[in-house]
Amino acid sequence: MSTPEENPVTAAILVIGDEILSGRTKDKNIGTIADYLTAAGIDLREVRIVPDEPAMIVEAVNALRTRYTYLFTTGGIGPTHDDITADCVAQAFGVGIDVDERARAMLLERHKPEDLNAARLRMARIPFGADLIPNPVSKAPGFRIGNVMVMAGVPAIMQAMLDAVGPTLSGGARMLSETVEARGVPEGTYAGDLAEIAKRHAAVSIGSYPMMTPEGFRNRIVVRARDAAALAAARDEVAALVARLAP
Amino acid sequence: MSTPEENPVTAAILVIGDEILSGRTKDKNIGTIADYLTAAGIDLREVRIVPDEPAMIVEAVNALRTRYTYLFTTGGIGPTHDDITADCVAQAFGVGIDVDERARAMLLERHKPEDLNAARLRMARIPFGADLIPNPVSKAPGFRIGNVMVMAGVPAIMQAMLDAVGPTLSGGARMLSETVEARGVPEGTYAGDLAEIAKRHAAVSIGSYPMMTPEGFRNRIVVRARDAAALAAARDEVAALVARLAP
Repeated sequence: MSTPEENPVTAAILVIGDEILSGRTKDKNIGTIADYLTAAGIDLREVRIVPDEPAMIVEAVNALRTRYTYLFTTGGIGPTHDDITADCVAQAFGVGIDVDERARAMLLERHKPEDLNAARLRMARIPFGADLIPNPVSKAPGFRIGNVMVMAGVPAIMQAMLDAVGPTLSGGARMLSETVEARGVPEGTYAGDLAEIAKRHAAVSIGSYPMMTPEGFRNRIVVRARDAAALAAARDEVAALVARLAP
Repeated sequence: MSTPEENPVTAAILVIGDEILSGRTKDKNIGTIADYLTAAGIDLREVRIVPDEPAMIVEAVNALRTRYTYLFTTGGIGPTHDDITADCVAQAFGVGIDVDERARAMLLERHKPEDLNAARLRMARIPFGADLIPNPVSKAPGFRIGNVMVMAGVPAIMQAMLDAVGPTLSGGARMLSETVEARGVPEGTYAGDLAEIAKRHAAVSIGSYPMMTPEGFRNRIVVRARDAAALAAARDEVAALVARLAP
């Protein structure tokens, strides 16, 4: 269950790309951003994956940017005809878009002027009013407009952009967590008592995560809270429960 | 870009679980289901990941089940207090939910009657009117209600449930695809001509996918269509373009 403590700083991710929905490319960015946000004290609340279709991208950008503190998009900012994220974000915000001179200068760090053809210049098209997110890997920048961070889909570039933009975000109180290994105790055996503990500790979130191993299920109980004392009190009760039930 | 050919058979995935959003667990089910649907001729059109919160689950179930032919959910059907998917799906459909005798019989294949406590019986709570999806791994079933398939989050169990339910789905015309390796040709060099080819072949979807390798970018152009002749014609033009530009 999610923590009942309110965190005022929330986020969503929008992954854009047919190649993820077809299964051809397996997304690696969601997990990377999730880890990053958790460490920064920002609650990732929702993720959506949509195809390279303007109406779906615009709808998702507007749904998520109005609902959460931050929205991170990945994918669709390259030079080819299927890269339409920047245009869709401009449309979602109702602003214009054109080649940005700062972005053109960044591209010129990598490309000779005579190689900066119309296709490559697409990567310098930035919605009016956006700030650029530098791309140390291949220069073509991402951008931030309002509370939306528009990043590349290639994982190494996305990671570099996240590192660049991350320090500019306001984090919340960091979520602390402790894991109790329920080795040898089936979920169905501890579930009733665990629910009672969860009820008694309203400021703590307790989840049970079964994992299959060659030796059978290996269950972990994860206790999460923003307050260290509340966390420790709940963790101690969970550990005592598991010890009592252990074979 | 998505194919302009209409496929009447579409799908969405709803991943349910705080552990995915916190980054603690890295999802593996989206890619598995995406591959499965592509092979079956079903277009995966959208994916959402939401936390273990009733309002968000119910809203997402209703948004996605009304928009697509099929909805697949993963996660939240175990015995612990944070497993609330079945109740939320019942609420989304406006039907009741209770212990299902068929599901109880399945659980009794694994558990002795005296071990079938209240927590384990939660796994037999099935919305009224649903059909069960067998779980050969740990017995606790998934279920299908209307066009919604409710499956486990543990990848091995999800896979077994998908194999069980898959043959009951109506597939569409299968999407065919061919990949042209643009070895040594940068995206920005072929993007303009590729857009022209894409425009000329309206029944074909053409995407360009850069991948970083230690030797630099390795780009692939993927041509997709449901019609083999249309696919071949576009693929030949793309291959000729790449050959012309190759260093």
